[in-house]
Amino acid sequence: MTLWVRYAADGGEGFGTLADGLIQPHRGDLFGASEPEGPALPADAVRLLAPVRPRRFIGLWNNFHALAGKQGNAIPDFPLYFLKSPGSVIGPGEPIAPPAAYTGKVLYEGELGVVVGRMLRDADEAEAAAAIFGYTCVNDVTALDVLTADPAFPQWARAKSFDGFGPVGPAIATALDLAAARVTVALNGRVRQDYPLADMILPPARILSLVSRDMTLEPGDLVACGTSLGALPMRAGMEVAVTIDGIGTLTNPVR
Amino acid sequence: MTLWVRYAADGGEGFGTLADGLIQPHRGDLFGASEPEGPALPADAVRLLAPVRPRRFIGLWNNFHALAGKQGNAIPDFPLYFLKSPGSVIGPGEPIAPPAAYTGKVLYEGELGVVVGRMLRDADEAEAAAAIFGYTCVNDVTALDVLTADPAFPQWARAKSFDGFGPVGPAIATALDLAAARVTVALNGRVRQDYPLADMILPPARILSLVSRDMTLEPGDLVACGTSLGALPMRAGMEVAVTIDGIGTLTNPVR
Repeated sequence: MTLWVRYAADGGEGFGTLADGLIQPHRGDLFGASEPEGPALPADAVRLLAPVRPRRFIGLWNNFHALAGKQGNAIPDFPLYFLKSPGSVIGPGEPIAPPAAYTGKVLYEGELGVVVGRMLRDADEAEAAAAIFGYTCVNDVTALDVLTADPAFPQWARAKSFDGFGPVGPAIATALDLAAARVTVALNGRVRQDYPLADMILPPARILSLVSRDMTLEPGDLVACGTSLGALPMRAGMEVAVTIDGIGTLTNPVR
Repeated sequence: MTLWVRYAADGGEGFGTLADGLIQPHRGDLFGASEPEGPALPADAVRLLAPVRPRRFIGLWNNFHALAGKQGNAIPDFPLYFLKSPGSVIGPGEPIAPPAAYTGKVLYEGELGVVVGRMLRDADEAEAAAAIFGYTCVNDVTALDVLTADPAFPQWARAKSFDGFGPVGPAIATALDLAAARVTVALNGRVRQDYPLADMILPPARILSLVSRDMTLEPGDLVACGTSLGALPMRAGMEVAVTIDGIGTLTNPVR
């Protein structure tokens, strides 16, 4: 298992592998051929960026049994998804800052993010599994009062797409034990979400396979696999941290 | 008023201005500095491409008084939008081909597309108006039976994002008489939509201003301004043509 990161240092940007607190810079293409180049950098001497800049940022609704049960939702056999604006993506440490005009509730939603590594079109599950580059943490931030503001038109895209409403990171893990890993979200250090990925309704390879029948997926596309119990509002001044075992912790301040 | 096009010729791609059946190729950046280069090409000797490849492809719901009245929708004071996958974009002449597994209704929706020319964030209407690069035709193709398949979750993103469900073109007109222009859609040559842009609820500059308060817009982003009466299903073998006076006709076969 490898942890890939993107970072800013010396006025430029780079990517590399993270191990034992050191980043080994690479040259080439994160999703294609790359090789190590230059000396390792202490991870605390650089600023980590979102490890991926997706062209498509897909988010799932209703993909965990526990939340579906609580909300009384039917178990879907197809991914029910919205699109987040790619511009919503921010990296670790960057602030979640709602627009000045929005004074409603802002929810965190800790989620598993799946990063696509190869072009996928009309793929079966085996192909889709082989096309997964890796896994990252996503905070699928939601402007709840926008979502429900118009009774005739639920505003999924708008509620999910404010600038900064898509924290991603800190790394992409090339493998993850989906049967064992948990997603936790801590607000000011207090754990508010803690759920097992094993409770997922549609697992990553099935999601990618089914979505690829609708639209061609490309390297760097990102799918947030939906959240479970415990998504709650945040307030300015708080700090929110999404942790997935084997990936790391994605921490962002709220403004 | 200038008409900008993108085209494929001699194995490469270019962009330029279209007048009197001739394309004057340009070098540089369509949204930045560019200048004419090389001899003019007969427009019928090249293949026109979608004139823009948006990072954000925003589509409005419920933005014409006539349709709102017929459907009994309240008049919104804010753009109600979904996101189409940027990969849905195709150019003039490319086929609209639903996925093999989808056998439901496929609707055309002829719309005005607004192309953003500059970065816009928290912009007032005057700034937004100045940031409009131009106008194009959009066919906001919709898989109607996907949209309504799940009673708890209207699937706007999915229904609008199948590969090829976003025909755009044939050109970007840098100016348009919004008070006089009409959108028409012909199916196999028979006019099925014919509505005035003057009936629009939120005009382009207001849309861009309001959306820019949610999310930063960038050069090349595309906003489809919503459709009016007459959107109907298409069948394989048909040809659909969206025309806006001053822009041209965007024609696509349906497979």
